[in-house]
Amino acid sequence: MKAQGRHYRTIWLSADGRSVDVIDQRWLPHDFRVETIGSVETMATAIRDMWVRGAPLIGVAAAYGLALQTTIDASDAALERATEQLQRTRPTAINLRWALDEMLKVLQPATVSDRVALAYRRAAEIADEDVEIDRNIGRNGLTLIQVLARKKPEGAPVNILTHCNAGWLATVDYGTATSPIYLAAQQGLNIHVYVDETRPRNQGAQLTAWELAQEGIPHTLIVDNAGGHLMQKGMVDMVIVGTDRTAANGDVCNKIGTYLKALAAHDNDVPFYVALPSSSIDWNLPDGRSIPIEQRGADEVSFVWGRDEDGRIGKVRISPDATKAANYAFDVTPARLVTGLITERGVCAASNAGLRGLFQERAAE
Amino acid sequence: MKAQGRHYRTIWLSADGRSVDVIDQRWLPHDFRVETIGSVETMATAIRDMWVRGAPLIGVAAAYGLALQTTIDASDAALERATEQLQRTRPTAINLRWALDEMLKVLQPATVSDRVALAYRRAAEIADEDVEIDRNIGRNGLTLIQVLARKKPEGAPVNILTHCNAGWLATVDYGTATSPIYLAAQQGLNIHVYVDETRPRNQGAQLTAWELAQEGIPHTLIVDNAGGHLMQKGMVDMVIVGTDRTAANGDVCNKIGTYLKALAAHDNDVPFYVALPSSSIDWNLPDGRSIPIEQRGADEVSFVWGRDEDGRIGKVRISPDATKAANYAFDVTPARLVTGLITERGVCAASNAGLRGLFQERAAE
Repeated sequence: MKAQGRHYRTIWLSADGRSVDVIDQRWLPHDFRVETIGSVETMATAIRDMWVRGAPLIGVAAAYGLALQTTIDASDAALERATEQLQRTRPTAINLRWALDEMLKVLQPATVSDRVALAYRRAAEIADEDVEIDRNIGRNGLTLIQVLARKKPEGAPVNILTHCNAGWLATVDYGTATSPIYLAAQQGLNIHVYVDETRPRNQGAQLTAWELAQEGIPHTLIVDNAGGHLMQKGMVDMVIVGTDRTAANGDVCNKIGTYLKALAAHDNDVPFYVALPSSSIDWNLPDGRSIPIEQRGADEVSFVWGRDEDGRIGKVRISPDATKAANYAFDVTPARLVTGLITERGVCAASNAGLRGLFQERAAE
Repeated sequence: MKAQGRHYRTIWLSADGRSVDVIDQRWLPHDFRVETIGSVETMATAIRDMWVRGAPLIGVAAAYGLALQTTIDASDAALERATEQLQRTRPTAINLRWALDEMLKVLQPATVSDRVALAYRRAAEIADEDVEIDRNIGRNGLTLIQVLARKKPEGAPVNILTHCNAGWLATVDYGTATSPIYLAAQQGLNIHVYVDETRPRNQGAQLTAWELAQEGIPHTLIVDNAGGHLMQKGMVDMVIVGTDRTAANGDVCNKIGTYLKALAAHDNDVPFYVALPSSSIDWNLPDGRSIPIEQRGADEVSFVWGRDEDGRIGKVRISPDATKAANYAFDVTPARLVTGLITERGVCAASNAGLRGLFQERAAE
């Protein structure tokens, strides 16, 4: 999508043909920086410290991390260590494991000398596949927006609420939750997006708002507390969020706070959709209750990042020094609160049967 | 309650016997400042700009605002102007109107020359009554906590979640939602409080956490997004919040985001209580749907206040300059989601019948 007026992806092969360039998302929206990554260690840091984030993107980043490793030591032992290192960075993300598995499927049977070329080819394919998947999620979600748009009075926008950033910055391009929004805007539909700021890391305020501003999509930033009130007042036509991991029964693990918005949507008859690539479905997980919930550092809660009045990017402490904080990064929204799952193959019910209908080959595993 | 190791109220008559001292809550938790207020104009500013906040406290502050006016011009016309000016500062707060009405009941029948003394006496009474009311709310809520404590395993704390600040800083002393907590701790019960940070103004992170730290009550700061997850995991035994206005049917208007916590409590069978002085009940309002919801400036959403790494208190911008924000300050929690109302007269169901049972004389009006 557009950044600084020209088209970007979030990750691409550097000009040297070996390193990997990424948009360093820690500085957005205040500063647009590109980092060049040359080793699996740096890639692990980039994933853990969230230079790159978002389930689909960290899958691609991990794939490129293994590719970087092959240029230094492509032995089985080295790949195993690198895989372990990358896997540990973000335990909740299922795409990460999926992408590493995809890489190993290609690399393990190959001779060590073939592994460099194979690794870069497969990583590039995973990136391109992600773009194609997101475009298809967009097309499938677009039909839902079109239905809502036809019911709106002349000139009234379709109001879509989203939580966190499941935008193109969370993928390689287009995004998951935002892909239907971008395609709808490209078709000239009148769209307005309510952007949850998404504490503690404010991915909504920092990333989703930035994306939408760069694309010229009308949007309004709200605190995470506000969505329920907006739904009570009929100001939200639809919620679309992303997911880090979806269980086989349609339970959805996503950024902390998603569950609260799903409860409010259910209580006010607002359709609540989850946009996801099928790679984020954990077919072996019968329901969401046992998904491990990542706990992150307390400082993400006690401090808030931003740009101060002198233009410097830094953090401010919001709580007393004596106050400790807890930081659960995700929650699980039960399938009963989810109106539908928007996948690359179509929209389905958030249920075993719904998912089986679209992904017969996977559900049969 | 305790601040800096000694007992404070939030508002008191200055040493000069005319001006009014308040804790200036804008600087907490980083700096403890007392401001001396000498005119109704300054008091209106103090209420509007939230040097003092919290429904019961701004009632008392408004009462003292009228008292200050009587020392300058106690004529009917001057009191009418002052009342209008104070009323405009925070349109959602019912106590503000209640306190002003209480003052006018005493002042209007009196001669102009008697009004100064009458005004200061009535304002002091309203402050003392507030303390007594909060103490009684505490005693009534304490019984609920004692019941929960008896069910907990040996050594396990009763986990109470609260939203915003309905603490002593929101009243004259004790607080509403915190009063049962303070009394429970004084009785030696093992209490732990989850404190919602409460964006956009972070009254939880800045004020509730500070209060609890000053009193030595174990507590953990969480983002507003986290409460639903904690309740799903059985980590919350009870929710207690305050309210700015309660309708005659038990619908509760409180800080934005309260409704989301009530939904989560209901979905997880966690008792959800609202602590309130009866002065915040709007007996003329049949339900909460028509309560006017204050919209505040967008900058409260786009910027976050705190202490930077150099120790300066200031704000950082968290969103792109091009992104606008909406700032609804309150929401309405339907009575069906409220387990009970903790009032100064006892605990009752959040319903017409429940409130009538405790306040027959008011409900009959």
